[in-house]
Amino acid sequence: MLVYKYPERTSWPSLLQRPVMDTAALETNVGNILADVKQNGDAAVRKYAQQFDKVQLQMLEVTSAEFIHAAAVLDADLKKAILQAKQNIELFHKAQQEAGKIIETMPGVQCWRKPVAIEKVGLYIPGGSAPLFSTILMLGIPAMIAGCKEIVLCTPSNAAGEVHPAVLFAAEQVGLDRVFKIGGVQAIAAMAYGTESVPKVHKIFGPGNQYVTCAKQLVNKSGVAIDMPAGPSEVAVLADETCIPSFVAADLLSQAEHGPDSQVLLVTTAGEIIEEVQKEVAAQLALLPRKDIAAQALENSRIILVKDTEEAMALLNAYAPEHLIVACKDDIGIADAVINAGSVFLGNYSPESAGDYASGTNHTLPTNGYATAYSGVSLDSFVKKITFQRLTKEGLQQIGATIETMAAAEGLDAHKNAVTIRLKYK
Amino acid sequence: MLVYKYPERTSWPSLLQRPVMDTAALETNVGNILADVKQNGDAAVRKYAQQFDKVQLQMLEVTSAEFIHAAAVLDADLKKAILQAKQNIELFHKAQQEAGKIIETMPGVQCWRKPVAIEKVGLYIPGGSAPLFSTILMLGIPAMIAGCKEIVLCTPSNAAGEVHPAVLFAAEQVGLDRVFKIGGVQAIAAMAYGTESVPKVHKIFGPGNQYVTCAKQLVNKSGVAIDMPAGPSEVAVLADETCIPSFVAADLLSQAEHGPDSQVLLVTTAGEIIEEVQKEVAAQLALLPRKDIAAQALENSRIILVKDTEEAMALLNAYAPEHLIVACKDDIGIADAVINAGSVFLGNYSPESAGDYASGTNHTLPTNGYATAYSGVSLDSFVKKITFQRLTKEGLQQIGATIETMAAAEGLDAHKNAVTIRLKYK
Repeated sequence: MLVYKYPERTSWPSLLQRPVMDTAALETNVGNILADVKQNGDAAVRKYAQQFDKVQLQMLEVTSAEFIHAAAVLDADLKKAILQAKQNIELFHKAQQEAGKIIETMPGVQCWRKPVAIEKVGLYIPGGSAPLFSTILMLGIPAMIAGCKEIVLCTPSNAAGEVHPAVLFAAEQVGLDRVFKIGGVQAIAAMAYGTESVPKVHKIFGPGNQYVTCAKQLVNKSGVAIDMPAGPSEVAVLADETCIPSFVAADLLSQAEHGPDSQVLLVTTAGEIIEEVQKEVAAQLALLPRKDIAAQALENSRIILVKDTEEAMALLNAYAPEHLIVACKDDIGIADAVINAGSVFLGNYSPESAGDYASGTNHTLPTNGYATAYSGVSLDSFVKKITFQRLTKEGLQQIGATIETMAAAEGLDAHKNAVTIRLKYK
Repeated sequence: MLVYKYPERTSWPSLLQRPVMDTAALETNVGNILADVKQNGDAAVRKYAQQFDKVQLQMLEVTSAEFIHAAAVLDADLKKAILQAKQNIELFHKAQQEAGKIIETMPGVQCWRKPVAIEKVGLYIPGGSAPLFSTILMLGIPAMIAGCKEIVLCTPSNAAGEVHPAVLFAAEQVGLDRVFKIGGVQAIAAMAYGTESVPKVHKIFGPGNQYVTCAKQLVNKSGVAIDMPAGPSEVAVLADETCIPSFVAADLLSQAEHGPDSQVLLVTTAGEIIEEVQKEVAAQLALLPRKDIAAQALENSRIILVKDTEEAMALLNAYAPEHLIVACKDDIGIADAVINAGSVFLGNYSPESAGDYASGTNHTLPTNGYATAYSGVSLDSFVKKITFQRLTKEGLQQIGATIETMAAAEGLDAHKNAVTIRLKYK
């Protein structure tokens, strides 16, 4: 990790720079696959499954026999852990439910908002070396709480046409019964346009590689909503002299192991901890199965020494990290200074892993600096808040002149007339 | 208006089709202007102001003398109306404030969400024939309530370099003091990238023509958030035999006058009202200053007779109108069946104009079918909901095994280790 001591503010932009993600080069290829699936449906999906995932799929949809088998073979401890995580995630996301209260802005003028579930949503869970069943909990649970009527899950199978039992168990526990063995761009296309097997949805959620990211961007442009723009995962740790360097090192490594493009940043007000953290990073890294990946990520990672907490928070708010760990004595006070971050972990006993898996908060978060303007996934991501209003005749009499005056001043006489004609009606 | 009686469900998709908006053809030109402003700042902004708005701008920012002048010359009734509307919009949007409550998902595991204002936002108000001061209220009021620290407003001036006094008065009343006389693509560019005069913002709001829409899409792709995708404005009216045909006609016309591409739809269960509504439309249209525009919009508009309310709501939910007016006896009951709409107006005395100007609800709404997945602008649009968590040592002991088991099953050992190292620490 590169160490910067008391850098000038003018150097912050270059210090905080992220690797540039550019999917423009992929757009033609990805666009062709999208168009093919839009046109040819399941046949195109099967073709790309064969081409990219080396699997010849008969049934695209997971059967109930497969769900039963998954539950039978999955390790009991893992099942217990999934159920515990589910309980916590449910508790946290249920607390986000809102009752629409009626506001009478003037006598006889009632206005309210009502959260209404997005009717049809699609969840994408990537395949690859490990089964990302935790993301099923993070997306499926709020979708179920919201009351989405049609929830489709796409995830690639292995070459034998099987989906990992942990994925199927998690899906079943959440209540997702429509799981399709489709991965990559063809999965995004199937959910965006619909095929003979896969229902078309209004919004698509979930992580993915650069092809999936590009596909989500393209279908978003053509009218399908997506959860948020994507980017490599990242953590920033703010540590003072009360931090425990081995914990800090473990947190940095838990982000670094995600991928060679992961971003890891340590900001500290305590110069004396830097060496200790670096020693711990080296020692812990050597024992990790994914040490090659983590080592690559660490090459681009930075340790920045700043003069005080205020400067630290200015720097961190400028960076807008996806995850922010505050390992400081005054962690609660510092929390108030957070303006830009996806999710914040306070104190020495709140590792990012807690939020990644089981504490209850969502792990689908804005990265790449998007935390300046975007929130992580929550119950809100699965509902629309529709406004309603009901005016009585007396209510319209109260507010009518205001509307007429404003409409006339904007040159919209028919808008004015919609009020006038009602006021004059006997 | 074209009349369709009891159309088959299979014909709904073609009946409900909207004009296709395609800004792809504009992308090169718009992209060039964006790049020029990014590179050359204020000088490029001035160049395009001269080229497109025929105005030679010295100061880009509105001065306090201009605000004072605006307040002095503006009509007293209009001022009163703006203040009344402001009061109602404030009341409705303040009620959207949330206190972040702490959820203890397990003993010692505390999680909460905190709404934090987006630090820097930009509001765009188009110029053109009429001053759209109402949109300043709709965007500026929630931005102020949210507590955004930097709120920039861009709006084009006339050829004399003046901004309409109603725009300046509304801005001042809302508390917006940074108003720039910049319009079109160059305004979006200035706010997205920043110039010598205009601060760079994280999210851009506001309506605009196809060039502005295209510019918002392009800067969104490069990382600046936008309020929502745009499209022509539209209204659907659901009317039964208790509706008042002259009111329905006035509502249809108030949408039709927006522009030749406005969408107007009347769905009714009462065949007997159709002729009366058509007569009223013709009579009222003749008296409108914007009758040519409205007449064009009506050419593409439809009246659809359906067999019952259930079928009507199925059709309307498939259409997902920006505005839905329910002029029916059981308007409250029907409200419960709304799945896809931006804003809903219930009963005979709730014209769309009420929500457009003054009842309190927001008028920046999802159109073009986006109401299937998007909400209108609200206080939520100006905040991020950041999650926080704080675990005690005992809390981590409670949840530790769950995290370790899940992380190991996903093959992420460093994630597991961030917990293990803490649990083992003495």
